[in-house]
Amino acid sequence: MSSIKFVPDEKHAAYKIGDNLLDAARRIGIEIIGPCGGKALCGKCMVKIIAGEQALNSPSDEEKLALGRKRISEGYRLACRSIITKYQEIIVYIPPETRASECVLLVEGQLVRERHDPLLRDVKAVFSRRARKSIIENILTRYRDMNIVFSLQALRNISSLVEDSDRQVTLVLHEREVLDVKDDDNILGFAVDIGTTKLAGYLVDISRGNVLVTTSELNPQIVYGEDVVSRITYAINNGVGALHKKIVDCINKMMEKACKSINLEVQDIYEIVAVGNTVMHHTLLGLDLRTLAYFPYTPVIKEPIYLKASDLEINCNREAKLFLPPLIAGYIGSDVVADILAVEMHKVYSPCMLIDIGTNTEIVVGKDGRFFACSTASGPAFEGAHIKFGMRAAKGAIERIDISDVGDVKYTVIGGARPIGLTGSAVVDAIAGLHSSGILDDSGKLIKRENIKRLRVGEDGLLEFVIAYKDETAIDKDIVLTQKDVREVQLAKAAIKTGVSILMKKLGVNEEDLNVVYVAGAFGFFLNPISAIRIGLLPKIDVDKIRIVGNTAGMGARAMLLSEEMRKEAVELVERIEYVELATEPDFQTKFMASMNILMD
Amino acid sequence: MSSIKFVPDEKHAAYKIGDNLLDAARRIGIEIIGPCGGKALCGKCMVKIIAGEQALNSPSDEEKLALGRKRISEGYRLACRSIITKYQEIIVYIPPETRASECVLLVEGQLVRERHDPLLRDVKAVFSRRARKSIIENILTRYRDMNIVFSLQALRNISSLVEDSDRQVTLVLHEREVLDVKDDDNILGFAVDIGTTKLAGYLVDISRGNVLVTTSELNPQIVYGEDVVSRITYAINNGVGALHKKIVDCINKMMEKACKSINLEVQDIYEIVAVGNTVMHHTLLGLDLRTLAYFPYTPVIKEPIYLKASDLEINCNREAKLFLPPLIAGYIGSDVVADILAVEMHKVYSPCMLIDIGTNTEIVVGKDGRFFACSTASGPAFEGAHIKFGMRAAKGAIERIDISDVGDVKYTVIGGARPIGLTGSAVVDAIAGLHSSGILDDSGKLIKRENIKRLRVGEDGLLEFVIAYKDETAIDKDIVLTQKDVREVQLAKAAIKTGVSILMKKLGVNEEDLNVVYVAGAFGFFLNPISAIRIGLLPKIDVDKIRIVGNTAGMGARAMLLSEEMRKEAVELVERIEYVELATEPDFQTKFMASMNILMD
Repeated sequence: MSSIKFVPDEKHAAYKIGDNLLDAARRIGIEIIGPCGGKALCGKCMVKIIAGEQALNSPSDEEKLALGRKRISEGYRLACRSIITKYQEIIVYIPPETRASECVLLVEGQLVRERHDPLLRDVKAVFSRRARKSIIENILTRYRDMNIVFSLQALRNISSLVEDSDRQVTLVLHEREVLDVKDDDNILGFAVDIGTTKLAGYLVDISRGNVLVTTSELNPQIVYGEDVVSRITYAINNGVGALHKKIVDCINKMMEKACKSINLEVQDIYEIVAVGNTVMHHTLLGLDLRTLAYFPYTPVIKEPIYLKASDLEINCNREAKLFLPPLIAGYIGSDVVADILAVEMHKVYSPCMLIDIGTNTEIVVGKDGRFFACSTASGPAFEGAHIKFGMRAAKGAIERIDISDVGDVKYTVIGGARPIGLTGSAVVDAIAGLHSSGILDDSGKLIKRENIKRLRVGEDGLLEFVIAYKDETAIDKDIVLTQKDVREVQLAKAAIKTGVSILMKKLGVNEEDLNVVYVAGAFGFFLNPISAIRIGLLPKIDVDKIRIVGNTAGMGARAMLLSEEMRKEAVELVERIEYVELATEPDFQTKFMASMNILMD
Repeated sequence: MSSIKFVPDEKHAAYKIGDNLLDAARRIGIEIIGPCGGKALCGKCMVKIIAGEQALNSPSDEEKLALGRKRISEGYRLACRSIITKYQEIIVYIPPETRASECVLLVEGQLVRERHDPLLRDVKAVFSRRARKSIIENILTRYRDMNIVFSLQALRNISSLVEDSDRQVTLVLHEREVLDVKDDDNILGFAVDIGTTKLAGYLVDISRGNVLVTTSELNPQIVYGEDVVSRITYAINNGVGALHKKIVDCINKMMEKACKSINLEVQDIYEIVAVGNTVMHHTLLGLDLRTLAYFPYTPVIKEPIYLKASDLEINCNREAKLFLPPLIAGYIGSDVVADILAVEMHKVYSPCMLIDIGTNTEIVVGKDGRFFACSTASGPAFEGAHIKFGMRAAKGAIERIDISDVGDVKYTVIGGARPIGLTGSAVVDAIAGLHSSGILDDSGKLIKRENIKRLRVGEDGLLEFVIAYKDETAIDKDIVLTQKDVREVQLAKAAIKTGVSILMKKLGVNEEDLNVVYVAGAFGFFLNPISAIRIGLLPKIDVDKIRIVGNTAGMGARAMLLSEEMRKEAVELVERIEYVELATEPDFQTKFMASMNILMD
């Protein structure tokens, strides 16, 4: 039977002729907003048909009215009005604004190349009690060169499955070890990107190579601090045990939920690949974090690690493996390795850059196969903290702002509701817009201008700019951008720009030489690159050369789960990366001061 | 400081000048009998000085009186009168009759060659928090070629042991895996021979290669049946779980006691090597035993196995390895592999034989580097069952019998007390003696003769021979050998002789060709080889060619614990052994009938 694939979720839904896309999506747990109740009135349930539009009815007049001619021509439809008329492969993209989830946790990302050479393999075998030498002899005879070994679980299952006559079973092989012997074919893997704020997980069918369920959870360590530094401090004072347990519990919960949603068992998960920054990596292992607290911020281990998942009390198959790809340094983890791998930056020999903006921003610049990497403490401004009306990308957050030359404002709100605050990307839009309309000067100062009614003096005696008036908002007050907010963003931007320019200088690369800039991570995904270039957050290059790639860390983890070659490439690429400790660079201060301006030439 | 080594226990005792050997032995838990309380009156505490007699006082007149000139000249002394006068290496042999243990569980055995190339090694390493790349980098740099990996425990300990300045620690390396990182040097191993009746264990200092503690326990599975067949039956009806748990608990108890006796922790045990027959091997693993219950008695796995000891809930270091050497067949286990290895039979190219007599008797015959092996159900007669006054080798058992031509009887009793029964070896002595004095004919029939007062008609109307009269015994009745007892031994002997002759025929070897016969195991250790040859239990060869080697299974396990090369040899020798299933041999019945006679020519 044909199925509909929803992207970027990578979830599949079965369907019958006559179903509509809204119902199909909801049936598999994709929450799409639709306040009108499927009557084509609100226009909120907009989706984009990527493939298989022939299998759907034609857009109705109601849809054309709700979406406009341009969107219809781009393939957009209202999910509630898209009726399936034929059995055929259909791929449907669900834009973020169509989602009803309370908090938008980015789990999708770009992956350049899909390889399928997993270490886990299923092999059919036949054995019988009548075997002359030992039950497993048939199996070993077939694989004699491989020097196969059997786990205790595999031996026990063989002993209990054996019958008088030949019996066919499935061996679950990991490299040269038989992890399990079973009657069914279910061999699952789980890739997880452990972020400081959230975890994104992918339940994968190893044999077929496809993602079955995508899932995400807020990182429960958040109760011990929002950023890695506060979590290190907590661990030094109280031991790493509680942080470790939170992560393990969260991974267990994600796997449990993911498996349950498609009626499989966590016992069918035979390998986990986990990526994350160094602090997440070390807390997952339960390592003492003291070495990460002080210069030179040395990880206990950077090398790739294989463990039994059960060693960490991770609850899946008792013989399941856990693979942790290599780290780069104390503040650049395996998530960045996964980023590079997913976009194949390690195969780019022209000048290139990857940036993952967050409280800590990781930057990698490469040229001729050589890479420099650094991490910079850009602070939480882009995540909404220290900004008067800042908030995370969640329902009610303004995520895009357009400011005209005369200071008029247009904005869009996540979830389509009345606004309650500003995302980091909206703040970047606002600063870029204010600068281009002349309301903000190059030094980042708001300038009083005639006829700009939204500009006014705020409570602190400094100028502020009104983004949304009280009567438009859901919080019964004006949402404004203050002079102080602008300064916060300038500081964050300066930290990033300093890192970028130090790395570029080391490689002898100028901004204009850059052939491609990958913007990874959740914040970058919602960022308007034109605004980002304008305020100097991204290098001044053609916007075409900027690739917003999303959660490539998760994609890279998934790629390693499915490919031995990818794991080897990860190890190999780490050896080509030189870590730069910004604090010890002699021109750090000078460059930082010079990076404060909005416009740099 | 010098120490005394007691053999075959391989236990070491520290000493001061002026100590006597009795106290030194008792201090480390070797129980020596001495009813006179150390007054040189009873003469029971006899020991033999193997080396270092110069470090002791000269034998006193009391000792010469108690032991006789011949024994004194052979190096025998009374432990209570042997005073240490010098610091020097002393080796003292404690004969079985000197021991006070309630039940004589044989743990000693012959080992031809000691190799010391263990898979476990201790390596010193230095690390510091100031390391530039990662804490473990120094270690990895030294061993880059080896592709070293770290266990979770090792990583956690590194992270908690790291300091600001250089710190030296000990890495516990197993092949290429760092199992642990610690402050001390204690690296222990445990070798265990899991017999159907008893377990013999050896706590070994891996770095130095010596046995620290020898320990033994009755196999607690005995509550589910005395022999392997009843245990298989139990497992088929009730699952293998209870049998599995008994063995694991017993091994845990042995290790716990052994470590406690020398103030070490079971957490210092990093590897266990366990040998045993196939049923013991499978129950240790918790494998379903169905395949062993029916022809062709196929083991689930015969190949060598490495597991984590903690997989089986064996309580030692959490990362400790468990090595199970290969099996030969359903009824010939890794204990026989260990036997062969210990005596180096696999390097003997002239005709040779190894026999381990018990309820099941294992036989291996070799020539030109090729080996045939079989197992034969010889029944429990030699272990004392089905014999009217039969009993195991324990205190009060008659273990040696000498019958003169005129039917006079001399015997020795284990522990020196009044007799309560007969060991298997005493029964063999009695039958041989009765036959040689003409009281038993070649067919095994007791013959009425004049002047043999001990021969009389028993309750069953058949003849019986009195070994000890009521007033000599501790059971208030005569201890006799009955006609039925003789028949039981004949059946057992015939089974063994049949196996031997079938294997010899396959190799084209005659009895007189045999260059060496190794008699392994507990029963064989107490056997008088002359009696055994007389009744046809052992081949008719020069008694010099018979080597009573004791618990070589334990010795072989210990050798494998201490040597990678020995493990390789074990795997290699198993490939040269062909298993013969006696029941399917065409001439089995004929040969069996022909083997019933006491004398065969």
